[in-house]
Amino acid sequence: MSDAVVIAVDLGGSSMKGALVSSSGATIATESRATPDTDVVDALVGLVHHLADTAADLGHPVVAAAVVTPGMVDESTGSVIYASNLDWRDVPLLELLQARIDLPVAVGHDVRAAGLAEQLLGAARGSRDFVLVPIGTGVAAALVTAGHTITGALGAGGEVGHIPVVPGGEPCPCGQRGCLEVYASGGGVARRYAARGGAPLTSRQIVARLGADPLADEVWGDAVRVLAQGLAILTLLLDPRVIVIGGGFAHAGEALLGPVRAELSGLLAWRDSPRVVPSLLGGEAGRTGAAILAFRAAGMGEVVDAWSTTTVPA
Amino acid sequence: MSDAVVIAVDLGGSSMKGALVSSSGATIATESRATPDTDVVDALVGLVHHLADTAADLGHPVVAAAVVTPGMVDESTGSVIYASNLDWRDVPLLELLQARIDLPVAVGHDVRAAGLAEQLLGAARGSRDFVLVPIGTGVAAALVTAGHTITGALGAGGEVGHIPVVPGGEPCPCGQRGCLEVYASGGGVARRYAARGGAPLTSRQIVARLGADPLADEVWGDAVRVLAQGLAILTLLLDPRVIVIGGGFAHAGEALLGPVRAELSGLLAWRDSPRVVPSLLGGEAGRTGAAILAFRAAGMGEVVDAWSTTTVPA
Repeated sequence: MSDAVVIAVDLGGSSMKGALVSSSGATIATESRATPDTDVVDALVGLVHHLADTAADLGHPVVAAAVVTPGMVDESTGSVIYASNLDWRDVPLLELLQARIDLPVAVGHDVRAAGLAEQLLGAARGSRDFVLVPIGTGVAAALVTAGHTITGALGAGGEVGHIPVVPGGEPCPCGQRGCLEVYASGGGVARRYAARGGAPLTSRQIVARLGADPLADEVWGDAVRVLAQGLAILTLLLDPRVIVIGGGFAHAGEALLGPVRAELSGLLAWRDSPRVVPSLLGGEAGRTGAAILAFRAAGMGEVVDAWSTTTVPA
Repeated sequence: MSDAVVIAVDLGGSSMKGALVSSSGATIATESRATPDTDVVDALVGLVHHLADTAADLGHPVVAAAVVTPGMVDESTGSVIYASNLDWRDVPLLELLQARIDLPVAVGHDVRAAGLAEQLLGAARGSRDFVLVPIGTGVAAALVTAGHTITGALGAGGEVGHIPVVPGGEPCPCGQRGCLEVYASGGGVARRYAARGGAPLTSRQIVARLGADPLADEVWGDAVRVLAQGLAILTLLLDPRVIVIGGGFAHAGEALLGPVRAELSGLLAWRDSPRVVPSLLGGEAGRTGAAILAFRAAGMGEVVDAWSTTTVPA
C-alpha cells in the first residue's frame, strides 16, 4: 500500500491553497483555487473532494483533512468567530466541513498553524518560546510561550499588526490610529510612499529604490523603526528565544533584518535582544501547519517527528 | 492538633513581608522586616525561622515555606537570574534556602505569584486569560494565557513597565526611552510633575489636586493615555478576559479606572475592550501567592480550593 496522505488547505481571502502531504512529509500534489465571493464552504468541500480523487488516482489512502483559516478562530470548537477578509461571523466551520467530508477533519488558525510548522520544522525548531511575525499586506503573529500558542479568551490574540505604537498616529484602515501595520507592512509602505507624492509602487519596488530615492529611504526607515519598536514590545512582554519574520515583506532580506536587529538592540537597554531570523518555510508554513493538524486528527501526529525541512511542502 | 500552617514571605527591595497562613486561608501571624543592604539570604532565613518559632508557640505545625521575589526568576530551578533592587545576579535562592530550612521550600516570582492569587481568589477568579498590572513606583505584570503564566525563555516576560510606547520619548531610569512607566506609574507621575516645575509631591498628592491644578491634570492625562495605550497593546496581543489593576497607583480608584476604560475603548476600533477592574487582594496578593506555592510544595495544593477572598490574608 502506498504512503498515507492528508489533505491540507490554507484558506485565504484571495486563494485556497490545497495539497496532499504524505506521512513522510512529501507533497504529492497541490491544487489552488481562487476564493469565491460567496459559498466559500461549498468551494472548500469541492477542493477537498477533488484532492481526495487525486489521491485515489495516485493510489494513496487519505487519512484526514485540515483547513486553516484567517480571523478569530475558536480552536476548541473549530468555529470562526470573525474573519474580515472572508466576511464571516460565527461560522461553525468544523461542523459544516465534517458533515460533508467522510474523514477526520481539523480546523485551525492560519498563522498559529504556520507557527506550529516553524516550531516543529522551521526557523524556530526546538524552541518553546518564540514569535512568528508574517509581514505581507498586513502583519499577523503566532505568539508561542512555553510551547503553547496564545489564542486568548476570544481566539483573538496575536494581533501584532494593530497594536498602537505611535500615539495619535496615522489612521489605519481598521479604524484605529498608529497601528504597527500602518507603517511596517507591505500595504503600509506602499500607501505611505504614494501619500507622500511617490509613484504607485509595491513595497518590493520601493525596497529596490533604497539608497537612490530619498522618499523610499524615509518610508522604509519608518517601517524599520516601527517594526523594531513592535519587536521590542514583544520581547519585553513575552521574552522569546527567537523572532521569526515571514511573509512577503521578508523578501527584503537583510535590507530589512539587518537594520531591524540594530534598531531593536538599541531600544533594549538592559536585556539582550532575541535572535531575529527569516522564516524557513515561507508561504508554505500555513499549509504545512494544516498538514500537521490533519495528521494529528488522524491519530498519527508522531509522523511529523521524522520530517525535516528538506521534505516539507516546497 | 491545630490547623497546619505555611510560612509565606514576599521579598521586596525595601521590606520582607512574612506571614503564617493556615490551611483554611487565615493569617495566623505576620512579621515584616526591612530588607538589609547585604546578606539578604541570611535575613530571609532568620525571618523564616522566627515565624516557625511563632507557629510552634501558637501550637501550629508548619508544613512548608515559600519566598516570592522580584526580578528575573527561573521557576524551574528556583534561581534569581537578575534582580536590580536586590542587586542579585544568578542567585540560586531555592538551593540556598533549602540548605538551611528543614521544610519543603518553594521560590516564586512576586508578581506572577500575585497573579496566581488573583486568579484563584481575587479579581480574576475563574479566568484562564487575564493580566494583572500592579502599578506602584514602577509597573509590573502577570500575563496569564490559557491558565499559564508567561515566564519567557529567560524568565524575563511580563515587563509591561518598560515596553516602548512613545517612540523617542522621555528617558527612563532603566536606560531606555519612552517606556510605559516613565508616564504611567507613581514614580513617573511624580518625576514628570516636578520636572515641569511642580512641587515635589507624591502621585497620591498629585491625584488629590486633579481639577484644581492644570499641571496635575496634564501629567495625569498623559498617565491615563499611556496606560490605556499599554492596555490596548496587551488586549490585542493576549486577548484577556479581564485586566486587573493593582499596586499603590490603583488607590486612585475611579479617578484612574474610569478615564482608562474610556480611553482604552476609544483606542480599540473593531473589538470590545476587556473588563478593567481593581485588584481585590491589593498589596497582600504576593504574599497570598507565596502561601499558595507553599501549600503546593507541601503536597496540599488543594486546600486553596476552599479559601475565599474573605479568608485570605488581609
